[in-house]
Amino acid sequence: MTRILILGGGGMIGQKLAHHLAADGWQGQPAEVILHDVGFAPDGAVAAQRMTGSLTEPGAVERLAALRPDVIFHLAAIVSGEAEQDFDKGWDVNMFPTWHLLSALRAEHVNSGETYLPRLVFSSSIAVFGAPFPDKIGDDFLAAPLTSYGAQKACCELMIGDFSRKGFINGVSIRLPTICVRPGKPNKAASGFFSGIIREPLNGLDAVLPVPDTVRHLHASPRSAVGFLMRAGTMELDPLGARRSLNMPGVSCTIAEQIEALRAVAGADAVAHIRSDPDENITKIVAGWPRDFDTARARELGFVAESDFAEIIRTYIADEMTPA
Amino acid sequence: MTRILILGGGGMIGQKLAHHLAADGWQGQPAEVILHDVGFAPDGAVAAQRMTGSLTEPGAVERLAALRPDVIFHLAAIVSGEAEQDFDKGWDVNMFPTWHLLSALRAEHVNSGETYLPRLVFSSSIAVFGAPFPDKIGDDFLAAPLTSYGAQKACCELMIGDFSRKGFINGVSIRLPTICVRPGKPNKAASGFFSGIIREPLNGLDAVLPVPDTVRHLHASPRSAVGFLMRAGTMELDPLGARRSLNMPGVSCTIAEQIEALRAVAGADAVAHIRSDPDENITKIVAGWPRDFDTARARELGFVAESDFAEIIRTYIADEMTPA
Repeated sequence: MTRILILGGGGMIGQKLAHHLAADGWQGQPAEVILHDVGFAPDGAVAAQRMTGSLTEPGAVERLAALRPDVIFHLAAIVSGEAEQDFDKGWDVNMFPTWHLLSALRAEHVNSGETYLPRLVFSSSIAVFGAPFPDKIGDDFLAAPLTSYGAQKACCELMIGDFSRKGFINGVSIRLPTICVRPGKPNKAASGFFSGIIREPLNGLDAVLPVPDTVRHLHASPRSAVGFLMRAGTMELDPLGARRSLNMPGVSCTIAEQIEALRAVAGADAVAHIRSDPDENITKIVAGWPRDFDTARARELGFVAESDFAEIIRTYIADEMTPA
Repeated sequence: MTRILILGGGGMIGQKLAHHLAADGWQGQPAEVILHDVGFAPDGAVAAQRMTGSLTEPGAVERLAALRPDVIFHLAAIVSGEAEQDFDKGWDVNMFPTWHLLSALRAEHVNSGETYLPRLVFSSSIAVFGAPFPDKIGDDFLAAPLTSYGAQKACCELMIGDFSRKGFINGVSIRLPTICVRPGKPNKAASGFFSGIIREPLNGLDAVLPVPDTVRHLHASPRSAVGFLMRAGTMELDPLGARRSLNMPGVSCTIAEQIEALRAVAGADAVAHIRSDPDENITKIVAGWPRDFDTARARELGFVAESDFAEIIRTYIADEMTPA
């Protein structure tokens, strides 16, 4: 049975991936799923083994590598806003455990007589890019992050690329657009309002918009994010050569277009819940984020996102607001 | 008096930079120069303080940071061939000490009440780029290294960029082309033959060419490298914004053109010393290296290289073969 380890398995995407694996299995077969995180919400029950702890604890990643998972989804991170506020914590959580994990997996590879070669899918971010950039960022564009979070993700990508090139692991990094509409409560991500201005109004609550509505950004639903991870976990990686970092597709739109999609799907009453309250810090962070990608390569490789923002809203309603 | 620390101060470039500083000082004034390296050649005498040790020793970078140098030239590294052969040593020497150095400099910055803000000049490499690439690599092109050495340099660039963006240091990374003609004996760099096929014949010795003479590559002399470092150490960095990695200019030419330049400068007898002996491993590494750059940005910023390879050869003859 395929053993699948999800780091950050208590998070929103980790939980959705675990539910998907419990329901659909792995390549048509049941899978053994192990979730690791610093904690799990009380209602996060899913048919999977849970391990609680921090990847920063001494020996933690070595113990996880010793399980010799066939596939590892590495989704564990602190979010961009927190990594920007707490410099030490950002690097300690978002970069160094990835190094230690890679080293531990390599040790297992060596100890196994080089028969153990895990698939590692790393959730990177479009935050590896920083302004100035072209309207559509291509696959050859440099990673010049304007946040510590982006720098940490970019370092991890380089390490994963080098360990893969050397044949110690079989890794791929997927640069996720902002995942929207996130269910549940706001988190500390600077991008949190992109979901908030849709989710709160749909649930009859007020929402704050901290940036101008002219801001353009790239979005994909949580359902698409799970699809990206599954595709990255199962696709043939050899055709990628040494370039193991992929820009994921998404819907590029302005906040005004997001709001118009909300009006079309849920009416003017929903839109009336949005209140503008500019936040200089968030505006500055978001101004350094990409607006759109040329994602032809990812689409050719079979990664699929929504076609417009209204579809993203309808996905939220179907997955989060509709009784199962 | 400006205190200047040169990490890797016992190496070829470090020694040349130290000699330059001893002769010309720093911005028209005498400077206090401290050289740090794992060892110094017996004939490497220069008017500077020497410190012997490894940056990988516990506490080593903290002691160096405590000296609060005004300017740090970080040239310390193991070369590409060795980093490729010894994976652990490559990362342990080429990446982690840079992280610890940055952390130690940041601690001094904080302890000084944020008055201490050192200039850090990091010698990166065109090895951060990997094929496939355009004929001329522009400043927006992605770092996709095909060697561990390149991945280590690219990670250091990201860290230096983030520490600089946060205002903990004032750093810049310069991506040096292959430095040619290196004086002295061959080192373990995969690029060593680029110098060897010129240096050995000029000194009446045989030289081996391990790759096809159609290989195109980018070169600058050791004298230009010192000029790049001095420029990076003294220029205004604010105009660079958050993009603190610069491609240095150089002479782009094929090995056949190198050999023709040798013939023009030193005659057919010199060229007769070159013997072709293909090495598959070196050919593979070199095939992943860049051939040419669009270095308009660096030239606008005042970085100057030779105009053709014959000039590089004449620089070697003037600096290394002519009695002072």
